[in-house]
Order: sequence, then C-alpha cells, then structure tokens
Amino acid sequence: MTASSSSLKPRFFEDIATLKDAVMSEGELVKSRLSKAIDGLIQQNVDLLDEVAIGDADVNACQIAIDDRAFKLLALHQPVAVDLRVIVAAIKINSDLERIGDLAVNISEAARRYFGIADSIELKFLPRMADIAQTMLDSALQAFLSGSLGLAQSVLERDDALDSLRVQAYRRLVDLMTSDSKLAPSALELMAVARHLERIGDHATNIAEDVFFIVAGEDVRMQTLGGADVGGVEQ
Amino acid sequence: MTASSSSLKPRFFEDIATLKDAVMSEGELVKSRLSKAIDGLIQQNVDLLDEVAIGDADVNACQIAIDDRAFKLLALHQPVAVDLRVIVAAIKINSDLERIGDLAVNISEAARRYFGIADSIELKFLPRMADIAQTMLDSALQAFLSGSLGLAQSVLERDDALDSLRVQAYRRLVDLMTSDSKLAPSALELMAVARHLERIGDHATNIAEDVFFIVAGEDVRMQTLGGADVGGVEQ
Repeated sequence: MTASSSSLKPRFFEDIATLKDAVMSEGELVKSRLSKAIDGLIQQNVDLLDEVAIGDADVNACQIAIDDRAFKLLALHQPVAVDLRVIVAAIKINSDLERIGDLAVNISEAARRYFGIADSIELKFLPRMADIAQTMLDSALQAFLSGSLGLAQSVLERDDALDSLRVQAYRRLVDLMTSDSKLAPSALELMAVARHLERIGDHATNIAEDVFFIVAGEDVRMQTLGGADVGGVEQ
Repeated sequence: MTASSSSLKPRFFEDIATLKDAVMSEGELVKSRLSKAIDGLIQQNVDLLDEVAIGDADVNACQIAIDDRAFKLLALHQPVAVDLRVIVAAIKINSDLERIGDLAVNISEAARRYFGIADSIELKFLPRMADIAQTMLDSALQAFLSGSLGLAQSVLERDDALDSLRVQAYRRLVDLMTSDSKLAPSALELMAVARHLERIGDHATNIAEDVFFIVAGEDVRMQTLGGADVGGVEQ
C-alpha cells in the first residue's frame, strides 16, 4: 500500500478538508461559549452566563458528527501518512474541544452561584488566567488549521504560566477563607473557575501536541516522558 | 473493500488481540495505582500515597505505546467494521485511562497534603464514592474485554449515584468550613478527592460508551443528546 491509494482521490481530499472544517467550526463554537462564560463572570452579566449554562447540546452534536465523519473516512478509504494522522488527531481534538465546552458550562454555573452569594471577592488573577487560556485555545486551533509548529510550541510554553497563576489564586483564596469563614462559599466558586481555566489550558496543550503529531509525525509527549506532567496532571 | 481485506489475515487478528491486551494491561496498572491512592487515604498509609504520587511515567509510557500501536494498525491494514471500531475505541479508552492515572496521582497528592494538616475530618462519603468509582472502572474494563453490554450498562447506571454522593460530600464540607474556618484547608483537600473520584466515574462512563460503539456499532451518546451531561460535565 502506498500513499497514492488514498491521497490521490480528489473526493478524499475534499473529505479531509471537510473534516478539518468541522473541527474548526466546533472550535469556534467552543471559543464563543467560553468567551461568554468569561465575559459573564468579569462583567457580572448574568444573561451571558445563562446562555452558556443552559447546556451545550450544540457542541455535543458537533462532537458526535465529527466522530462519525472521521470513522467513516477511516472505514471507506485507506488513509496513510499525514491523512491518517489528521483523522486520528481530529478524533482526539474533538474530544478535547467537547471537554472545553463542558468546562465553559462549569465556569458559567460557578459564576452564577458566585453572584448568588452576597460576599464578593476581588481576584485579579482570574482575568489574567482567562486571557492566557483563551489565547492558548485560539493558538492551538490556528496551529491545527495552518500546521504551524511555532504556534503549537507557543501553546506548550504558556501552560506553565497558567498553572502558576492557578496556584497563586488558590493560595490567596485559602487565606481569605481561613481568615473569614463567611467568605468560604464565594471563594470556593472562584477556586472552581480557576481550576476550570487551568484545565482548559491542559486541553489546549493536548491539541497543540496533536499538531506536532500531524506535522512532524512524532509524539511530542515522548520528549517529556518520565515526569507525571505528561498529558497534564490536573488539580 | 470488504471485511475480508483485513479480517481474514491471521496476523491482523493477532495484532488486534495484542492491542486489546495492551489496553487491559494499562487498565490493570491504573486500577492498581488508584487502589493504592484510595487505600493510602482510608488507611492513612503515607507510604502507599508516596508510591502513587511519585509519578505515573509507567502509565504514560503505556499510553504512548498504545497510541503508536493503534496508529500502525490503521496505517498498515485496512480495518473495517468491528475491527476498526475496536481500534478507534482503543485510542479513546487509552486517553481515558491515562486521565484516570493522573487523577490517582491527584488523589495521592491531596491525601498527602490532608495528612500534613493537623485537623482531620470524618467523612463517611469518601469510602463509598471510592468503592463506586473503582467498581465502575473495573466493570468498564471487563465490558471492553468481554463485549458485555450488560456490564457496560451497569457502569452508566452507577454514575448518578457517584455524582449525588459528590454533591452531598461538598455540602457537608462547605458547612464544616463555614462553621469553623480552621477546617478549610483540610476540607478543601477532601473536596478535591471527592471531585477526582467523580471524574474517574465520568471516564469509566466514557469507556462504557465506547463498548456500546464497538459492539452495537452505535453512538450511545446520541440517545442522551440534548442535555449538557453528555460526556460528563465536570465540577
């Protein structure tokens, strides 16, 4: 079997492009829902939060459609080399995007509960964390579309900053709730938001690793093997 | 292309069996690490916790090897029907098992910090949650091995009980920390453990859904589409 068995069929080319488009559309949908969740929290806009918290049936429908499309491409063609890597990566990225969609729902729900509690807390870390997480997601998706390893690398490099801000946010919030126990319910919701943002960064990192796999044909996780941080240990 | 193009090759049969064995071995490794984390917490055995917290390089190595094996099977053969579904499912289950491995590390680390704090809290929910999560993981793996839809269904049915125990555990712990702020650091670690256990249940649910996909050729997520709980919204 050679690359020509699949790659030279024009229809197959089209199908691969359509699969990539479907992943990008899912990505845009997830990005938009995440922006609403974050803007809702920062601008105290409950309507925006409700739009997200109402459920992500549209993201789930995308996810199922992409899995189905990828599976049919594998079943009907005999993809090899980069085509096969794109399809396998699309299956994985699809799963990461669906989780990010879930996390946007979680952020909205936590923010909703937070605004339902009388005690509000000033926390400067959250907008910075949100900014990094959104940039990571955006760059990871652009790297998938363009095949830019430079962009993919920039995602991997931002993850440490996000983790470190989460640790700082936790410390500050623990201090607050131990000095005044009335603040515990509010602080807990903001801790949840910080955790969700950190996990969005982990999923963006997974997507960037998949871009290395597509372009370079190598498993970038191999290079960091040996530490527990491969794949992102989550709090 | 017909099923015979791949399924009648004896070597291919062997390769599929080896892939399933590799997933089961990864599953056994992850189960054993999870047991150590939970036993370490419940029996206050710090040595067990340290064994898990030291890192899961072995699980990560399994994950990379399985991805590589699955990818080569797709590239070298032209799998169709159930063979293709097993390979695609193996890629997804592999990712869920690796995350469960991460969560076992997270449980150990939280338990380690918990025992480092003077204030201990009696929480009867955690052993019950751990028991359900472990049963779900075990049944999901057995369902993958045997193709039993009954076992897979039992996993899906247990998830609600686990979610509900997590909510109860959270409520109890929030009450404790608001009534006595000194308890906040301990309570936070136990909340993290409860959350990690709930997420292990979500990953076991994903594995069970993949068994439906392999055996029945259908996407069981389709049937629950419309709610935000497809794929497991996590706290």
